[in-house]
Amino acid sequence: MARVVVDVMLKPDILDPQGKAVHGALPRLGFDGISEVRQGKRFELEVDGELTEERLAQIRSLAETVLSNPVIEDYAVHVQTA
Amino acid sequence: MARVVVDVMLKPDILDPQGKAVHGALPRLGFDGISEVRQGKRFELEVDGELTEERLAQIRSLAETVLSNPVIEDYAVHVQTA
Repeated sequence: MARVVVDVMLKPDILDPQGKAVHGALPRLGFDGISEVRQGKRFELEVDGELTEERLAQIRSLAETVLSNPVIEDYAVHVQTA
Repeated sequence: MARVVVDVMLKPDILDPQGKAVHGALPRLGFDGISEVRQGKRFELEVDGELTEERLAQIRSLAETVLSNPVIEDYAVHVQTA
């Protein structure tokens, strides 16, 4: 049993309205000194059995084709060691 | 200039319909061997100036009050070293 985390963020040159909205609300809420907020997605996958290289390659392909839209998003795959 | 990442995930005992939907789609798409998927949010904050302990405490309070709903979500704050 292993846990793999896939982080999906909009590419840096793609406008992020959610992050902008959060950023715009901060001064009103008394938080300053933050120059940018970007919001993305985090997926935690529980993988059965051993995490082989092959299995990890399959998860990378999953991240690229299902969990993210590679036209506008970047993804990162991390293995989480408990 | 420092980057702080805030990960927000539903608490383990809260039903996660988004993650369930992704998980349900996997066998159809040819991915197997994944026993659970949970979907959460990832915020990347660009902090002006030096990241002092005080500033970090402010960001933790931001994570708890603005970026997450502590009734149903857990958050984790990481400083990202570039």
